[in-house]
Amino acid sequence: MAVYTDITDEELAGLLADFDLGSPLAFKGIAEGVENSNFLLETEAGRYILTVYEKRVREEDLPFFLGLMDWLAHHDYPCATPMRDRAGEMLKRVRGKPAALVSFMRGLSVRRPSAAHCREAGRGLARLHLAAQGFPQTRANDLGHEAWTPMFERLEGAADALKPGLAATIRGDLESIAQRWPADLPQGVIHADYFPDNVFFQGGEFAATIDFYFACVDALAYDIAVALNAWCFEPDGSFNITSARAMVAGYEAVRPLTAAERAALPVLAHGAAMRFFLTRLNDWGATPAGALVRPKDPLEYERKLAVHRASPDLVLFGAGAAS
Amino acid sequence: MAVYTDITDEELAGLLADFDLGSPLAFKGIAEGVENSNFLLETEAGRYILTVYEKRVREEDLPFFLGLMDWLAHHDYPCATPMRDRAGEMLKRVRGKPAALVSFMRGLSVRRPSAAHCREAGRGLARLHLAAQGFPQTRANDLGHEAWTPMFERLEGAADALKPGLAATIRGDLESIAQRWPADLPQGVIHADYFPDNVFFQGGEFAATIDFYFACVDALAYDIAVALNAWCFEPDGSFNITSARAMVAGYEAVRPLTAAERAALPVLAHGAAMRFFLTRLNDWGATPAGALVRPKDPLEYERKLAVHRASPDLVLFGAGAAS
Repeated sequence: MAVYTDITDEELAGLLADFDLGSPLAFKGIAEGVENSNFLLETEAGRYILTVYEKRVREEDLPFFLGLMDWLAHHDYPCATPMRDRAGEMLKRVRGKPAALVSFMRGLSVRRPSAAHCREAGRGLARLHLAAQGFPQTRANDLGHEAWTPMFERLEGAADALKPGLAATIRGDLESIAQRWPADLPQGVIHADYFPDNVFFQGGEFAATIDFYFACVDALAYDIAVALNAWCFEPDGSFNITSARAMVAGYEAVRPLTAAERAALPVLAHGAAMRFFLTRLNDWGATPAGALVRPKDPLEYERKLAVHRASPDLVLFGAGAAS
Repeated sequence: MAVYTDITDEELAGLLADFDLGSPLAFKGIAEGVENSNFLLETEAGRYILTVYEKRVREEDLPFFLGLMDWLAHHDYPCATPMRDRAGEMLKRVRGKPAALVSFMRGLSVRRPSAAHCREAGRGLARLHLAAQGFPQTRANDLGHEAWTPMFERLEGAADALKPGLAATIRGDLESIAQRWPADLPQGVIHADYFPDNVFFQGGEFAATIDFYFACVDALAYDIAVALNAWCFEPDGSFNITSARAMVAGYEAVRPLTAAERAALPVLAHGAAMRFFLTRLNDWGATPAGALVRPKDPLEYERKLAVHRASPDLVLFGAGAAS
């Protein structure tokens, strides 16, 4: 889904005048990405996605995101390559908003990932972690574990409004997560939003990753935990151990986990569920006017929190350590 | 803009299994069309638009719309061609809704048409009227002039809520339009929604027409009147005579108007403004939950009605008859 910034033909022509991409042949708003406006643009030179960054993305973070995509694309990782204008700039402005033109990536995301998709997705995530090694820029995870307790202080009322008594349960989760949170796990660039809609497949194989607008430096295994939550729960709320095993095995075929990373997966997954629960709770009822977005249901992640709270071993089963 | 029906990979695969178009390579929801869900689909065979028809389009009308597009595309008119499955069917079902797969058309719509665009658009409209000659199916204009008075009876309260006293003014317009409405103008298939967002250009020239989901049989000159309202008003509400002259001249370069058609343009334009005022008034405040659409402002067409009410000669100036 996308918030929709309207771009006039003059604004598009003004943007393209800075590039050597020829004349526009087609231009359509597309429903893709988290909170930005995206357009499919075809020019005489090829196909591109124009992304216009809306409020949620901080402009000072864009050089990191675009630099990372540029780095990955030049290190054999299948992701959109930001186009440089004649002055070498990737970050442009359209209608007063920051914007970038990136290459179009073929592939389809899956709505209901199979275990085979999870294996491929795991492989794609490990490839990302390796390809990003050496990327010189850094960005702290502003939605990382240290942010959760202060973030929840503003949301306690919203939690109880969602479900009476939930605030106390969440406070318990936050304490448990803080006590168990691991130190000294291998760090690196993580995607931090590796959900099925951000991963493309072709012919059943991993094809590309999109939407790097939460990327940051954090524990690599935390990225797996985010993905386990996003890919390996069934619609009925149960955790699919087969899918989780496939995802971890796919990941480890490219980058084996350390023993400490494997042991930390339960608390990382509990924490990753907290991160998405909190942002969804925050967005619930705070969706801006004019947004072409329905806010995502925070209860989906409240149920995932409950699973991790009750049976953290499930994730270890998925990691093959407790089977 | 588009209401958004979510299509799973299984549903897409199920649809494509009926066609000889190869495997899907890319699939994205796009913001295009009036009230249907549209997706850009790339397969091994080429690029297509998948349209899933939402409530507003009556299923019994779809054979007319798809048959017309098929006819036009095979009579040298640049519009999307509906794809036929292996059984020869153009009308399919996806997720229980009627759907069609049509060829992708290059081109860009313009947000702020110049007089040169209006000339090209006029040419494209006349080409449509000629290309549709001989199309054997028919469909009455259910939003034509006979529908306006009964439609307004349900909307009088909404009109006065929009602007106190407006209902009485609109009733006066409806009487005036009914008294002046011409009989015996040349009839044929009209687009009936020939707005700038439904017309594509390439390099400043007319390239294609899309979105035939209001097409019907009515007075050909009424189609010009709809287009004059849609293309030739400035953002400040004034009627741009230069643009109107260019549009009519472009049209007449392909299909000259009869004297009766030219003389009828003022009342046709007044009526065409009424038609869009009424449907926008109806939609205002009645937008369905979950629609990714902001309803269009009925006051835009209330202002156009006022222009036609006060100075119908403006349209005649545009038609070159009173200059």
